[in-house]
Amino acid sequence: MAKPQVTFAEISPSEFFYRNRDLAGFSNPSRALYSATRELVENSLDACELGGVLPDIFVRIMSNEPHRELADPKTYILKIQDNGPGIDPKFIPHAFGRVFFGSKFKLKQARGMFGMGGTMSILYGQITTHRPVTVVSTTGDGNAYKFEMMLNIRKNEPIIMHKEKLPAEGITGTSVEISLQGDYFRASSKILDYFRQTAVVTPYANIVFTDALGRQFFFERVTKSMPTPPRMTLPHPHGIDVEALRRLLIDKKETTLLQFMNNNFHRVGENTARKFLEYARLNRDTDTKSLKTHQIVTLVDALHRYKEFLKPDGSCLSPIGKEILEAGIKKEIQPEFIAVSIRPPSAYSGFPFIVEVGIAYGGKFLPSGPSLFRFANRIPLLYDEGSDISYKIVRYDVDWKYYGIGPNAPIGILTHVCSTKVPYKTVGKEYLADRPELEHELKNAIRDALRQLKIYLSRKGSIAMVERKMNIYGKYLPLIAQFVTDLSGLKKKPNYHLLLKKKADDSGEKNEDKKKKMNVKVSTKRDKKTIEELSELEGQTAIEDFG
Amino acid sequence: MAKPQVTFAEISPSEFFYRNRDLAGFSNPSRALYSATRELVENSLDACELGGVLPDIFVRIMSNEPHRELADPKTYILKIQDNGPGIDPKFIPHAFGRVFFGSKFKLKQARGMFGMGGTMSILYGQITTHRPVTVVSTTGDGNAYKFEMMLNIRKNEPIIMHKEKLPAEGITGTSVEISLQGDYFRASSKILDYFRQTAVVTPYANIVFTDALGRQFFFERVTKSMPTPPRMTLPHPHGIDVEALRRLLIDKKETTLLQFMNNNFHRVGENTARKFLEYARLNRDTDTKSLKTHQIVTLVDALHRYKEFLKPDGSCLSPIGKEILEAGIKKEIQPEFIAVSIRPPSAYSGFPFIVEVGIAYGGKFLPSGPSLFRFANRIPLLYDEGSDISYKIVRYDVDWKYYGIGPNAPIGILTHVCSTKVPYKTVGKEYLADRPELEHELKNAIRDALRQLKIYLSRKGSIAMVERKMNIYGKYLPLIAQFVTDLSGLKKKPNYHLLLKKKADDSGEKNEDKKKKMNVKVSTKRDKKTIEELSELEGQTAIEDFG
Repeated sequence: MAKPQVTFAEISPSEFFYRNRDLAGFSNPSRALYSATRELVENSLDACELGGVLPDIFVRIMSNEPHRELADPKTYILKIQDNGPGIDPKFIPHAFGRVFFGSKFKLKQARGMFGMGGTMSILYGQITTHRPVTVVSTTGDGNAYKFEMMLNIRKNEPIIMHKEKLPAEGITGTSVEISLQGDYFRASSKILDYFRQTAVVTPYANIVFTDALGRQFFFERVTKSMPTPPRMTLPHPHGIDVEALRRLLIDKKETTLLQFMNNNFHRVGENTARKFLEYARLNRDTDTKSLKTHQIVTLVDALHRYKEFLKPDGSCLSPIGKEILEAGIKKEIQPEFIAVSIRPPSAYSGFPFIVEVGIAYGGKFLPSGPSLFRFANRIPLLYDEGSDISYKIVRYDVDWKYYGIGPNAPIGILTHVCSTKVPYKTVGKEYLADRPELEHELKNAIRDALRQLKIYLSRKGSIAMVERKMNIYGKYLPLIAQFVTDLSGLKKKPNYHLLLKKKADDSGEKNEDKKKKMNVKVSTKRDKKTIEELSELEGQTAIEDFG
Repeated sequence: MAKPQVTFAEISPSEFFYRNRDLAGFSNPSRALYSATRELVENSLDACELGGVLPDIFVRIMSNEPHRELADPKTYILKIQDNGPGIDPKFIPHAFGRVFFGSKFKLKQARGMFGMGGTMSILYGQITTHRPVTVVSTTGDGNAYKFEMMLNIRKNEPIIMHKEKLPAEGITGTSVEISLQGDYFRASSKILDYFRQTAVVTPYANIVFTDALGRQFFFERVTKSMPTPPRMTLPHPHGIDVEALRRLLIDKKETTLLQFMNNNFHRVGENTARKFLEYARLNRDTDTKSLKTHQIVTLVDALHRYKEFLKPDGSCLSPIGKEILEAGIKKEIQPEFIAVSIRPPSAYSGFPFIVEVGIAYGGKFLPSGPSLFRFANRIPLLYDEGSDISYKIVRYDVDWKYYGIGPNAPIGILTHVCSTKVPYKTVGKEYLADRPELEHELKNAIRDALRQLKIYLSRKGSIAMVERKMNIYGKYLPLIAQFVTDLSGLKKKPNYHLLLKKKADDSGEKNEDKKKKMNVKVSTKRDKKTIEELSELEGQTAIEDFG
């Protein structure tokens, strides 16, 4: 038998993701249209927030041949435009035309994690329609730069087909337009969910979405507060590996271990550095350039084992915050009741994270039964809910009965995890891995918010009870008064109206008081009716309270 | 406010996976030890099968400091050795030291899909222990080539630290040894499951695994049949995209569309090509070099829409086959009953696949309740069961009652999907995406195998009933005989033994017949007992059958 020949070949990063586009969420025309929209919107939101600009985002999906009624899947044109700070024209070709070239490869919270969503969208557009992408961007220097480009996938390089300088006075921003094969018929509900949920966590953005059917959806800005932008951070000692430490040792100028420890780690000052080096039995004056491989390995080991390092703090994170989260939920979900619980910063493997949970109850839009809304670094996660850690908690770990919540209660649970490194399990950013630290924080936040709901519900229950009581008074008092009159042989009924009024006033006060605490009206219609009924009643009564 | 500066940077493929190692299954010391073992074993099995060699695989995990009782996680040395065809020394540095360089980037069934498992294992070893990998390989030319290497992650390049030629007469194969941080305490059960399940689908391999506790597990070869190796295939018209078509048009020499269609697609001959070009309203004599972009797009569109192309066939696939699958299940699971169902080839998006399902029932090892064993291209999938399509079918779609299977029945369901492109959702190869075509085939195969089990169970039920009946005969006949004797005033009891023997022979024949069909003994112990009991009985009887 002839010996089989094993042949080897190298492929470029573009080629790898071209061949394995399922990994990045581009598995079919419906999913790809959703992913491309989402990736480009997220790049725009990131750009605006980084630039400290209140985002104005315009998105349009239209059929390539709007006048022919073609069946899906077909070619769509997707355009996204923002008012962010714009991109320096010298970076544009590579930023959009090269996989693994980007601005997101930092220890910093951002919607993008892998720095490849934009390029993947363009790549998918090209392999399905073979048309160029058009990027126009202006940084506010009076000119906008327009590029028409395609990708050389085999070489992972952009090919500039056309380049142009246009006048653009006094504005900044970027627009991206691609052609791609899509299936809007199947994707539309997910895309609309995506925008609605994005609006919940970014109520400080104006987002206008014109869809392929010509419908216009306007998600309006309701607050001008923006979350504090995230900052870059130094690595935490618990999150460092041998490779990272070796690079730090090579790149930095420090000559002693003490200086090195003091200058290069998150929340490690001279005092902690000194104590740690004692613990690790390392000489603080050791020249960092003299460390041998096995010493570096020992050092990393000690860095991981030492328990006295301060936990990462949240200064580098940008949570949404109570005010913005409430504004977003009120605006998009319009529930009867909102509770928000924000946990203090925590960390897994040296990466800081913060968990925020919002609970919405009742109102017009929530269906019966619990609805889960998952977010990570302000991205809605719409696929693979069943694999997500939040789902597992809500489904299996929460004792709903304890909080007085039945299986059909109209309740929304919103979970948001922000981190310098969100533990996604796929490049498509669909769900979070089960990290015990994350699970712990999520559980606590959900339970805390549910406790607030429980208090609300029990107050609401007691108001309802008072109202029921008043109805009973109103119904039976006249009858009893009549009965007493007949029994006693009196001509005139005792004036029970006064008693009824007194009870109503008492209960009314209590109700008003409770409603103030709850901040949201319970049931305006019913209140009015009760007040009307009561106002009809007048007079005096001799009958004692029998409540 | 100063304008924030957006900075861009490029990272290498190694760097990308170094930063996002969770994506490839290297998220923590326990998981990483499992993933590294698995990736290297799979490379070895692929190499042996490609070379047509019955695999002999040796795997050893040992503590770096075996004489010190250190707590996990700690440094382990993982070594894997095979008797495959070996690797040409000129390819070794890049094959093991460069992400996106490999032998798997082909349209061909293989365990490896992404061509990066080996390099990822080495990369993880390096970033946790900073030690080189040692690769020794011989292709049978009398020499073995030994390389000690590290990776330059930033540049995605191997650094050769040491290179040596050693004499190696008459053997071929490759061995790889890495140091890595691992947690064998936590990983051991998954790693053992991995080997056991691998043994089920590769009963033609000898696998010896020496674990970190010094235990040796030997998974012995029980058959010398190996599945027919997979072959390369041409792309199917339904699976082609614009980029792939454009490349084909550039790379190939054909000058007319008819020739091009005839030579470059799976199951497209001249006749089909001719009909298709008529359907697409394209001139068969068009020069392929003259096609414009929009024409290429139209051509791809037509290729996808044309329904008359033959489905991909299975010639390029390498299913396990009934014989090998039964041998593997019998060897590792030792059940009471086995049913195997193999579906004809099918396809999703132009990629052919074959589904094989094995059902095991009873025996010593299966726990009560259904156990699912998932495989794809002969890889056991051990994580994220809940997200897998097979799980969804077994859990929600199968009507167990219909097959007479209670919730506690000891049943194992083995599913195997082989394809030129397995629709994994993560680089870590944990579970398969929900493709409707795949779901359809899996459902049918599972149902078919369960029908076989149902027949077996109902036969087993009737055998059990006959046995119960015989017991009743044996118990009551003597009493009735005595009663009849007393009643009739006879001295001698009628000889009922003959009747009993006759019944027993009849039932016995039926049973033997049924057992032959079932191929596996039902309950040897009970059979023996019944036969012994029956052989004690002799004589004649006048009493008629009252069954």
